[in-house]
Amino acid sequence: MPLEIERKFLVTSNAWRREATKSVEMAQAYLNDLATLDAGAMNVSVRVRIQGEEAFLNMKSRELGTTRQEFDYPIPVDDARALLKLAVGGKIEKVRHYVEHGGRTFEVDEFLGDNAGLVVAELELDDAAAAYERPDWLGEEVTDEARYYNLALASRPYSTW
Amino acid sequence: MPLEIERKFLVTSNAWRREATKSVEMAQAYLNDLATLDAGAMNVSVRVRIQGEEAFLNMKSRELGTTRQEFDYPIPVDDARALLKLAVGGKIEKVRHYVEHGGRTFEVDEFLGDNAGLVVAELELDDAAAAYERPDWLGEEVTDEARYYNLALASRPYSTW
Repeated sequence: MPLEIERKFLVTSNAWRREATKSVEMAQAYLNDLATLDAGAMNVSVRVRIQGEEAFLNMKSRELGTTRQEFDYPIPVDDARALLKLAVGGKIEKVRHYVEHGGRTFEVDEFLGDNAGLVVAELELDDAAAAYERPDWLGEEVTDEARYYNLALASRPYSTW
Repeated sequence: MPLEIERKFLVTSNAWRREATKSVEMAQAYLNDLATLDAGAMNVSVRVRIQGEEAFLNMKSRELGTTRQEFDYPIPVDDARALLKLAVGGKIEKVRHYVEHGGRTFEVDEFLGDNAGLVVAELELDDAAAAYERPDWLGEEVTDEARYYNLALASRPYSTW
């Protein structure tokens, strides 16, 4: 069952744009604000995302770091709109660029709105130690820095850092 | 789109059993414990239910009373098992009996485990004022009593009342 190994990096230049093959606009928000929850009140984040004409409900277990359980289900867009109204914290808007490099796909998230100026690259791997080719534009790894979590950005956006 | 009008009643006898047409075993738990949450930390309950060979993820908005937004999605049973391990509070086990009366279907939940002894009947209606025929076995309405919420029963089961 869905174990996700995801490493997250800053980017050091715009050079990734040359390798982008596809870009998708996303709007998402969280139904819970884990930051205000006592340990034990909830072990997963619950996210609603509208992505073009599709919508998804996503849950991730609460552990920090690279290995988290993830569950993702398509839902009707109308449901997603209603659920976004029940969200807490702010809405996150971003463009996700799919960037091919060294046989792997980096997802480069270019944030908008309150998080404008922030760009991070994510790489999904089968296991935490898997090798990958480092593009020139890849910067510092921030996988374990909680403030870069989308969940954290919803309540404490980049513009307030 | 999911507006649910649901009225909940105690039962005064076992006479509903004669009118039961189907019975299904259910095990469910909640991914969040709204009782411990500050207002604003989360506006919906998130429930995982395994029901025979099927499983569902359900979300209900937080308003008390008869009118709550409800969202229900089928999910793989394996996902449901993994999500139940991420649940907070206790697991609720019950047998749901579908009971036909006066052209309507009452759902009579006979609780097991820590809630054994509790039996409630639920009736879903198109609007809160809709007429319905009252069976002899139908007792006091408890729609607005929060302790009868399944969510409340997960953390404070009937055996502790």
